[in-house]
This record gives sequence, structure tokens and C-alpha cells, in this order.
Amino acid sequence: MILLKPSFEILNITRDPLRLIERAGRVCYRSEDKIAEGSAERFCRMLIKNGHESVLEHAHATVEIVTSRDVTHQLVRHRLASPSQESQRYCDYYSGHVRFIIPEWATLEANDITDLNAEDEYVEDAAEWEWLTQVFESETGYRLLRKLGKSPEQARAVLPNCTATTIVVTANFREWRHIFRLRSGSCADAEMRRVMLPLLSEMQNRVPVVFDDIGGDHGTE
Amino acid sequence: MILLKPSFEILNITRDPLRLIERAGRVCYRSEDKIAEGSAERFCRMLIKNGHESVLEHAHATVEIVTSRDVTHQLVRHRLASPSQESQRYCDYYSGHVRFIIPEWATLEANDITDLNAEDEYVEDAAEWEWLTQVFESETGYRLLRKLGKSPEQARAVLPNCTATTIVVTANFREWRHIFRLRSGSCADAEMRRVMLPLLSEMQNRVPVVFDDIGGDHGTE
Amino acid sequence: MILLKPSFEILNITRDPLRLIERAGRVCYRSEDKIAEGSAERFCRMLIKNGHESVLEHAHATVEIVTSRDVTHQLVRHRLASPSQESQRYCDYYSGHVRFIIPEWATLEANDITDLNAEDEYVEDAAEWEWLTQVFESETGYRLLRKLGKSPEQARAVLPNCTATTIVVTANFREWRHIFRLRSGSCADAEMRRVMLPLLSEMQNRVPVVFDDIGGDHGTE
Amino acid sequence: MILLKPSFEILNITRDPLRLIERAGRVCYRSEDKIAEGSAERFCRMLIKNGHESVLEHAHATVEIVTSRDVTHQLVRHRLASPSQESQRYCDYYSGHVRFIIPEWATLEANDITDLNAEDEYVEDAAEWEWLTQVFESETGYRLLRKLGKSPEQARAVLPNCTATTIVVTANFREWRHIFRLRSGSCADAEMRRVMLPLLSEMQNRVPVVFDDIGGDHGTE
Repeated sequence: MILLKPSFEILNITRDPLRLIERAGRVCYRSEDKIAEGSAERFCRMLIKNGHESVLEHAHATVEIVTSRDVTHQLVRHRLASPSQESQRYCDYYSGHVRFIIPEWATLEANDITDLNAEDEYVEDAAEWEWLTQVFESETGYRLLRKLGKSPEQARAVLPNCTATTIVVTANFREWRHIFRLRSGSCADAEMRRVMLPLLSEMQNRVPVVFDDIGGDHGTE
Repeated sequence: MILLKPSFEILNITRDPLRLIERAGRVCYRSEDKIAEGSAERFCRMLIKNGHESVLEHAHATVEIVTSRDVTHQLVRHRLASPSQESQRYCDYYSGHVRFIIPEWATLEANDITDLNAEDEYVEDAAEWEWLTQVFESETGYRLLRKLGKSPEQARAVLPNCTATTIVVTANFREWRHIFRLRSGSCADAEMRRVMLPLLSEMQNRVPVVFDDIGGDHGTE
Repeated sequence: MILLKPSFEILNITRDPLRLIERAGRVCYRSEDKIAEGSAERFCRMLIKNGHESVLEHAHATVEIVTSRDVTHQLVRHRLASPSQESQRYCDYYSGHVRFIIPEWATLEANDITDLNAEDEYVEDAAEWEWLTQVFESETGYRLLRKLGKSPEQARAVLPNCTATTIVVTANFREWRHIFRLRSGSCADAEMRRVMLPLLSEMQNRVPVVFDDIGGDHGTE
Repeated sequence: MILLKPSFEILNITRDPLRLIERAGRVCYRSEDKIAEGSAERFCRMLIKNGHESVLEHAHATVEIVTSRDVTHQLVRHRLASPSQESQRYCDYYSGHVRFIIPEWATLEANDITDLNAEDEYVEDAAEWEWLTQVFESETGYRLLRKLGKSPEQARAVLPNCTATTIVVTANFREWRHIFRLRSGSCADAEMRRVMLPLLSEMQNRVPVVFDDIGGDHGTE
């Protein structure tokens, strides 16, 4: 089995998003003649300050995320996001390895483990050992069920919430703002925050005007 | 642990849905004066035949479903449906029992199992025994992690896809039609169909005009 | 032509909405055993206070509104609402009368006018007279275009924004809350507020627990 | 007043959309290793053929459209599209000219008209003349109402359906396919088709794999 930590990669982001947002937003006021050097940044700040966030919907970011299935079960609920996710019905882990997300509370390192006993001396924490045993056994169970003739769709029944999954999510900037507010605060799932906080940080680097007012703790929904 | 089969209960359905749909639909043509005994049924059939399904959105059904987490992971993606689901973050199964959905391919009966060994003589099929062992061990693991100080949110990492969950889904009739077409055909997940086929059948009993053209095999999306 | 003021009628509202919301919401915590006399009201107030508004989506209200076309042009943008609207493509006003919404700033009364000159002595305000002349002429223009062989879809080109339209809108309680916040504040269109304020008031009478915290001025979006 | 014909401009389109769609779609099957020269096109054709259109949601196009208000009243209903539209509440046409869309059945040319009488000798068709008179008078009425102290929001009451409006619409490729199917067929509004048919044609030029199966007559919804 493969143990790994969550990760993400931004696959695509709208070119020149502030200029596109400004262009679309100025149509509302027919103030396109005010487009000038630096005006896009000011215009976008004004939109956010005044709560006219619908104009932010013209720009998008597509992100590939590797996380656990319990995180994606929450993530796919966002209505204005478009997810494409690794399917445990179509993918067959019989000949390969099942991947698991190391819990955020564990000290385990990313690793490829084939012999559980060999790990015994390295894992001292009882909870980590229990988690490790559980995921190792679930992979064994999955393989046995496949061997006994069950399909991937049937065998996946025994794979746990912490099984890793890859998901590609496209959302517009307004929706990403909503996702970050909801999913990065202290009320959010720890595994979710573990993905969302660095992703928010990266988006703040890329498009500061649109994302830099988000952060800290914005409650739940 | 508790083994159970999927089930559902219709909690609410719009009163007199055909009359409401007719009333709303006739506004488009200002033909309210044609409302008469039996006209609602004919009007709704006409809408469906002509593909004017948006008018069906005025009527809703709310259904409580008990199924596995892999089924709900698919179900919550429907954008025009409103789900409220048992939270493995807020619910603590430490003092109670974890519930698991018996696979559709298994012959096991709904049961409350505390001693796995006692089951040994009843379960002859190797795959069923493996599945039973897996879910029993995952419950044991969950409890041990809780005992070792992990929170419900942390302990749930080891609970498998076939863990039972209760979800309440409200959707309008047009969306239910879409869900049934997508989720009851032969390309759909077997566990999903196991819930959707009897639910479709029940909706056909309750509102035949709106649902009786759906069935058999409508492919995937 | 027919002059009228905006109006609305609630065509349908979920039965016992608080109990349905409580039932669905308690599934999240598996606290269904706490359902008791008066618990639904307390539970719904807690949801709203804590911002868990998604649970409010299980209850719906369907409203028929008579208003002007500029109001409905804004109203149909709400994504989680379901509109069915009088179609100027399907409806033919050639043999009947075109209906217009009297502006909120005018003192004109609801009326059926066939001879504009007869109104001259009653209308003293220059702006009201100009408005009245405009809508009378547009009806005349519509009829002439129809007479000259143009279809209703073609003739409607000359009908103004203040032409009356009937629309049936179904939305869930969360979405109605959103609509009321956005469309009843001081930044909203005066014609929109003219419909939304009395509708909000009526919803507050019917389901005070869900709507009574809204009101006054909640800004724009 | 300004008479003009509908037009559009594609403001933005996802870079390399087929490769992004392929990348996201292959995550479902974990078949990223099959990405090769020319594979994206084959993959996208397969998705469309099999009806797996959700993967098309990762790519977007943003289009600025100049059309009549009756067309945008229909267009803004599409839930997965993001519109930003010229606001008749914020824009003031008192000092400028009101723009009108020349009907598709008329032979009038784009023009800037200040004196209606000067047009008399050029317009022979009675319906065209009536339309021209109507829009000229509505502009006059708008200005008079503004002069009498009414706000732009109030004065717009008399502007007709054929008043021109600029709208920027962003939608993903799946939604654009849906829009084209619904809005370019023979059941659609003639003014709508007038915009949608050339836009579809342009999208087919830009991304043939995704749009070239649409066309002709796909009925209504």
C-alpha cells in the first residue's frame, strides 16, 4: 500500500482574470471607457468591498487535489463547482496498490509499505499503529474480494474513508471564495483544512486582489 | 455492529402536485381558464411529452434514505437536490453501534452482531465472511481509536465505504426524473440501483403521470 | 389597456415546514429522539442563528406574482428558484388588452382604459401623463403590428418594461431568505421592493421562525 | 437613437480546452498515462458520444453579446451560466442615445437617427415604419420623464423589449452545448436564434470536437 499526504496542483487558471472581470463588470455601468493601466485591480477591489461578487464568476481555476474520500464527499456538494473524480467503480486496485492519506494527527511519512511487520519497530504511537493496521488489512480485504470474483465496485465496499482519491475541481472565483470561507475555518474538517489552507495561500499568491481578504476563521455554514 | 439493508421513506411530497404544476404551467400560456376536472393530468402528460420539464420543478418530494456512504458520495453531487446527511464528524459511534449496509451480492440478513466467532458457522461464502470480518474489524478499530483519545472525526478515517448513513434528500420532480434516469439504469452502481429502483416504483405509485415513462434502462451520464 | 398594481398570491407552501426541517436536520446529528412538542421551533431558530441554512432547503413556497417585466428580468436570475412565466411569444394580446403596471411613483388607480383623451382631465402630473401616453401608444403599436401580419413574438418588440407579466416562482426557504435580503433592501429596485416587502411580510406571518430576522435594510449583492 | 443589429464577441476561452478536459476526465479512470499526441481529441469525442458531458464543464467561454432585452430575459435563466448585464438602473441614457435592435424581419440598416421625419422617404414597409415610430417615441418619452425629474430606473419603464442591451455571459462547454441545443432550434425565439446561430458557428470553428455535433434543429425544452 502507498501512504501519502494530501497535495494539490493548479491545472488551469483564467488568463488575466482581473481584466476579464473588469471588462464584464463595466458592462453593467457601461463604463468601459474607464479601463486603463491599473484600473482592473481597483475595480475588482471595489466589487468585493461592495459585495458585487457575481462579476467574479467570469474567472475560473481548475485544481487537481489528492485527498481522502471523506474530504471529497464534502467537496462535491458545492453546486457551482465541477468535479471529475477517480472512480472506485472503474479503477481496479487489484494489481496495483491502494493509496491512503496519512492522518493529519499522525507522524508517519509518505511511504510504500508491503510488509506491515517491518513497520512495527518504527511506529510507537498506539493510534498510529491501529490506523496503519486498519488500512493494511482493508487493502488485503479488497484484494481477497477481487480474487474471490468480486468486481472493483463490489470490493471497494471495504475501503475506508481515508483511502486516497484524486479529484479535479473547476470553480469560478466567487465559488472558490465561498469554498475557502466555508472549508478553511476552525469549524471545518481538519483533513479538509489541510488541503484548503495551502490552496488558499497559493490562490492568494496568484490573484491577491481577489483572495487576500479571506483567511483566519470565518465560521461554518 | 448492526447489519442492515438499504431502505427509504418518503417524508413529504407536494400536495396535489399535478394541480400545482398545471396552475404554474398555464401561466405561460395564460390558459388558466382551461383548468377543469381531469385537465391537470392531461396538461402534465403534454408537458413531459413536449419536453417542457421546467414546469415540473414546482413540485417536490423529500425522501429519507438509509444506504452506504459510497452511494451518498454520488447522490450529493446532484445540484438541484438538497441533502442533509448524518455527519460522521458530529455523530459518535463509540458508545453505540456502527451500522453497515449488507452488500447486494450477499445473503446475510439484517442482524445485530457482537461476537464475530458466533457467526462463523452460518456464513459459508468466503467473500461474505471476508466482508463480515472487515466491517467487524473496522468497528473495533474505530472504537480503539476513540479510546486512545481520537475524536469521532479522526476515528472515522477507518470506517469503510459500506458504512450505513442516513440522508434526507429533497428534490423537485424534474430533478427526481433526472436522478432516476441516471441512477437506476444498468450502467449505475448496483448499490445505488438497489435504492433507486424501489423508490422510483413508489414514486410511480404516488404520481404515475410524472414518473411512469421512466424505467428499464436509460443509460448513464 | 388595463392598468394594475403589482400583487401576489401564495399558491403553495410546504405543510408543517418546521417539523420537516427539524426531521431532516436532526439526521445530521442523529438526534431524532429529541423531537418533541415545541422542539421544531427551537431547532430551526438554532439553525438560522448558527448559519446552517442548508437545512432550510427542504421546505418550499410557490408564489404567483403579477409585476412588470423589468422586475421579472431580475427575478429569473436566482438559480435555486424555479420560474414559470407568461410568455409574450405564446400569448397574443391582439384580441384582449395589454396590461401595464402603474409605476410606484404614480397616483393612478387600477383601471381599464380604452380612450386616452377621456383620461386627460383626471391626470394632472406631467410625468404620469407621459407614462400613460407611452403605454397607450405601445398597445396601439402592438395591435397595428399584429394587424400588419407580425406574430405575437414579433409585435412584442414594442411593449415596454412596465408591461405586466404573471410569473409563478417556487423556491426553498433558504433561497427565499436570500431573495428577500437581496431584493427588499434600500439598494433594490423600487418596483422589486414593492412586491418583495409585502411578500416578506406575508411569509413572516406564515412562518415567523424562518423569516422574522429579515427586514429593514440588508444591502445589495 | 441608434439602430443596430445584434452582435457578439468572444472575450475569453479556456486555453487548450481539449487537453484540460482530457486531463480531468482521465482522472476518473486513472488513465493519465494514455495522454499522447492527438489523444485529447479522441478522448473528448468519446465523452460526448457516451454522454459523459460533466467532464466538459472544466472548459469555459466568455461571450459579450449585444441583443434585445427580450432575448436576455430568456438567457439569464440558464443556471450554470454567469451573466453581467448593462443595468438600466445604473446607466442613464438622458445625455446619450438609446440603442435599439433592428428586428430580424426588418430591412432597416444600422443607423443613428435624430430626425424621424427625415426617414420617412426611405421606409416603405408599414410595419417597419410603425416599429421605427414606436422606438423613436419611447426614446422621447424616456428623455421627457428624466427631464421631469424621474430617475433612470423610473424612466426605463417606457423602454421597449427591443431596446439593445450588452451582456457578458460566461458558461462552461457543457452549458454552452445545452444553450445552443435549446436556443438555436426552430422552436426558439427568432431574435435569440439570430445571436445563437452565428455564435454556435464560431464555437464550432474554435473547438470543433466539442460543438460540431450540434446544429440543425434540436427542438425545445
